[in-house]
Amino acid sequence: MLTLSSRGQLMPPSPIRKLVPFAEAAKKKGVKVFHLNIGQPDIETPQPVLDAVRHSDFKVLEYSHSAGNESYRRKLVQYYKKAGIEIDHTQIIVTTGGSEAILFGFMACLDVGDEVIIPEPFYANYNGFAVAAGVKVVPVTSNIETGFALPPIADFEKLITPKTKAILICNPNNPTGYLYSREEMETLKQIVQKHNLYLFSDEAYREFCYTGEPVSAMQLPGIEENVVLMDTISKRYSACGGRIGALVTKNKQVLDSVMKFAQARLSPPSFAQILGEAAVDLPDNYFDATKAEYLKRRNTLVKRLNEMPGVTCPNPGGAFYAMARLPIDDSDKFCQWLLESFSYNGQTVMLAPASGFYGTAGLGKNEVRLAYVLNVGDLNSAMDCLQQALKEYPGKK
Amino acid sequence: MLTLSSRGQLMPPSPIRKLVPFAEAAKKKGVKVFHLNIGQPDIETPQPVLDAVRHSDFKVLEYSHSAGNESYRRKLVQYYKKAGIEIDHTQIIVTTGGSEAILFGFMACLDVGDEVIIPEPFYANYNGFAVAAGVKVVPVTSNIETGFALPPIADFEKLITPKTKAILICNPNNPTGYLYSREEMETLKQIVQKHNLYLFSDEAYREFCYTGEPVSAMQLPGIEENVVLMDTISKRYSACGGRIGALVTKNKQVLDSVMKFAQARLSPPSFAQILGEAAVDLPDNYFDATKAEYLKRRNTLVKRLNEMPGVTCPNPGGAFYAMARLPIDDSDKFCQWLLESFSYNGQTVMLAPASGFYGTAGLGKNEVRLAYVLNVGDLNSAMDCLQQALKEYPGKK
Repeated sequence: MLTLSSRGQLMPPSPIRKLVPFAEAAKKKGVKVFHLNIGQPDIETPQPVLDAVRHSDFKVLEYSHSAGNESYRRKLVQYYKKAGIEIDHTQIIVTTGGSEAILFGFMACLDVGDEVIIPEPFYANYNGFAVAAGVKVVPVTSNIETGFALPPIADFEKLITPKTKAILICNPNNPTGYLYSREEMETLKQIVQKHNLYLFSDEAYREFCYTGEPVSAMQLPGIEENVVLMDTISKRYSACGGRIGALVTKNKQVLDSVMKFAQARLSPPSFAQILGEAAVDLPDNYFDATKAEYLKRRNTLVKRLNEMPGVTCPNPGGAFYAMARLPIDDSDKFCQWLLESFSYNGQTVMLAPASGFYGTAGLGKNEVRLAYVLNVGDLNSAMDCLQQALKEYPGKK
Repeated sequence: MLTLSSRGQLMPPSPIRKLVPFAEAAKKKGVKVFHLNIGQPDIETPQPVLDAVRHSDFKVLEYSHSAGNESYRRKLVQYYKKAGIEIDHTQIIVTTGGSEAILFGFMACLDVGDEVIIPEPFYANYNGFAVAAGVKVVPVTSNIETGFALPPIADFEKLITPKTKAILICNPNNPTGYLYSREEMETLKQIVQKHNLYLFSDEAYREFCYTGEPVSAMQLPGIEENVVLMDTISKRYSACGGRIGALVTKNKQVLDSVMKFAQARLSPPSFAQILGEAAVDLPDNYFDATKAEYLKRRNTLVKRLNEMPGVTCPNPGGAFYAMARLPIDDSDKFCQWLLESFSYNGQTVMLAPASGFYGTAGLGKNEVRLAYVLNVGDLNSAMDCLQQALKEYPGKK
């Protein structure tokens, strides 16, 4: 018998995508499904950056440099400078999405069996990259009661073992929308300094902060060697399909090692590098409109949720996600029921059950993640559905 | 001290790219460098497929399906049908280049410590993907004397251990250009059947065969469950920068497992999927001109090489590479010397030392790989340089 690898078997299916067949069945029945389940923004990709690709003029679609086109990396230096991050172009390796930046970081810094501490709930695909790299995810729990603030130092220290090599944060956070304060970032700095750990920082949602300015892990003096920034243009410019991200670090050893992984896969995609390069030249106020739109959506969503009996939803400081606690028995069952057995005025809503975002078994059973990637009108209709669903759902608590 | 992972340290630097700084230095001195070192074709990407991207009309650059756009996968079914390979669209997972197909295949089928037998010399980046996946490459040697034909069954069987899980071939071969015959493919079938192994088949150069029709591993009845095809559009349509490939198999278990790795990284690049989809509609005679061009180049290169005293170059049956044995002490030194210390009429040539393509230490020391990706005029000039260099090189043998 041919066998799969253990990691092939261990590899978790995407908790967000597993409900897709139920959504497809609902649509076949003629039910309109509001997708609050995935982080695919409906914001239009800026016309000038799409035009940069459409008007590109070359004869051969060549491999780029394995670290990405130098012209793009030099442009990115300008982008980071505006974001208050001082680096040079040799400290950037352009990756195939933020996904590859995370995988490369794990591969270069962590051995099979090493541990990375991640505040939970966390972006579910971290599990996938960890399985691919043979790395163990150790969750440290953040709570809906504190709005998913950084857990106290003591909680981290309880989890640190000789195998612990890194802490991974996502800031502002997917799935909670939490924005870490300067104090929390300083706390993280203390921990990684004291225990000599890498600090992996996923800052995919940097531009979407509503309650203050984000503090990048790259802005913490004294731990320059520890910090590896994992970035992506996917959400920033609504360019998810381009598959362009970046791994940024001042640690020369890490850069050299990541570069070897980058060389093995030859180069990141060429078309979307053209897009990314053009995007740096968007006017400084480009994000204002997008941010204002997300803010309006966030306010609508959070207000509607907290008005529903038994529902709690902390006000997220950034990104375009919110986590809500619902008066239900099991969010996996509830989300499936919404698609399989419920509709309201011919409509229903697709949510992401929170269990897939927790590393600790049993947590998140009455929580869901909502991505506010629809306009306010659709969001309100989706909330009408949810409000009615919570009245009808047989597994109410 | 922060430490790199062992695999981060083990990861081999690209043997092809390590001479790049010497080439850059030569160019700064004003020397023209003919690049026969990398498989970046100079053939123009077909205008209609670039136009498909340039005229694409969408508002949001969205994630595609994790397995690739269904419309593209359905088109690919037509492409494979023309190539004599019968599959349906659910048996295709579109990947980020052939690179990702290889990595996914290793990840899903092989565990850390498992062994994959690969005829050497082989595509050097297989080493990189093996290190990333923790898999051990076991080389089985093919020789320049037999034109790099498949080693005899006995040579494979000597290497098979309980850890052996797969054989990986590249057909037609990079770096040797060797095209496996039907008999050789049947031999491989016998081995994988008898020892219950996966047969990974990298068929990136399928369209470029000069001495006969290629036999795909997908065309071997009886081992449908064993075969995993690792494919790419990079060379086929001179679209290396697009980063689009595919993993194709009839093994449902493998598909399901690979799909989980594909979901973790969300989706393959969107722009180049548009290109790939349009490419299937190129006229059936599209490859005729490209193939005729490569054939002319191959004939020029092989003739010129074999006319040089002490040089042996078997006539490759496919791809656009040739391996030559040179009367030199050490091809690493020679290739560096060509860039650092030699020029002829203000020109020199960059070659790939063969040592990087062998898994067995010490082999390939007097061999180089030449990629005939330049026009006949430039190839002749490059051969003029090589001919003169072999007269002047101090490490002659």
